[in-house]
Amino acid sequence: MNLEPARDRDVAAGLLEVLAARGETLGCAESLTGGLLTARLVDVPGASRVLRGGIVCYATDLKASVLGVPADLLAERGAVDPDVAAAMAQGVCRVLAVDWGLATTGVAGPDPADGKPVGLAYVAVMARAGAPVVRELALDGDRTAIRAGVVAACLDLAADALARHTRVVGGPVAYRG
Amino acid sequence: MNLEPARDRDVAAGLLEVLAARGETLGCAESLTGGLLTARLVDVPGASRVLRGGIVCYATDLKASVLGVPADLLAERGAVDPDVAAAMAQGVCRVLAVDWGLATTGVAGPDPADGKPVGLAYVAVMARAGAPVVRELALDGDRTAIRAGVVAACLDLAADALARHTRVVGGPVAYRG
Repeated sequence: MNLEPARDRDVAAGLLEVLAARGETLGCAESLTGGLLTARLVDVPGASRVLRGGIVCYATDLKASVLGVPADLLAERGAVDPDVAAAMAQGVCRVLAVDWGLATTGVAGPDPADGKPVGLAYVAVMARAGAPVVRELALDGDRTAIRAGVVAACLDLAADALARHTRVVGGPVAYRG
Repeated sequence: MNLEPARDRDVAAGLLEVLAARGETLGCAESLTGGLLTARLVDVPGASRVLRGGIVCYATDLKASVLGVPADLLAERGAVDPDVAAAMAQGVCRVLAVDWGLATTGVAGPDPADGKPVGLAYVAVMARAGAPVVRELALDGDRTAIRAGVVAACLDLAADALARHTRVVGGPVAYRG
């Protein structure tokens, strides 16, 4: 796990550079990171070409009302859940009209929440055209360290996903044997 | 202008403490600060009792589509405008269903934007029951310093507004002479 702001800045800058070259846009849906992920991206000069915005849904009900996470999913499993992270990433693509959505949810502490331990978190990346990818994290440290770790992990996941992502242009092409 | 994170934390903590005692909630609408204001508030332990979330509308069109800032106001004056700041604060009260809305908009640089100079910014505070209060800022420094100054100024404006705010309970009382 990376807690170095300078490395985060490099990952964020690389991510924005690749997306700018592809003409694609990005938005963030944040819970425990509370705006830090979006702020880290905004900090890169020229970010506005790619980053359209971010939505911090710190209160659980806002994940449903603003991001469209299914209320029954939240009621059944709480906010710290891989499918919730995926639904947040999916929701932010829609609400902010972006091609790529990043999402964070987890327990920063100092106390457990929703029956989940401090340091458990999920980060998700969604490309509008594809399926969401979610990574589970178990982080040590205080609230600040946990949040910084989640921001770093989400940026890394996005960079991994983008590196693997092959854009499919147009519909399927029929070949006749 | 205050650029000291420790002082910001104290102001943020004081603000959240007063609002918690009043049973009132808070949300942020951010443009140039890109999530830093929300993150500063989230950083206070126990923030979740008061802070419900934040919306970063970095792209101008999202200020209309997500926060409900009038599109003709944005078209006429651009995003760096006192009435836009007020409408952002008003919009976030509605979208996040909070009692108090804070908003930031301005030019972080390095280049002027919308015909407005680097360092010009507006912060706004809206109490759901009242009229928005807006403060104009002219800040020096690089992008980081300008953003930090805007966060500090918005927290200070909220603290001032809260100190002056007298909650009116019930409807008007008729006195007969």
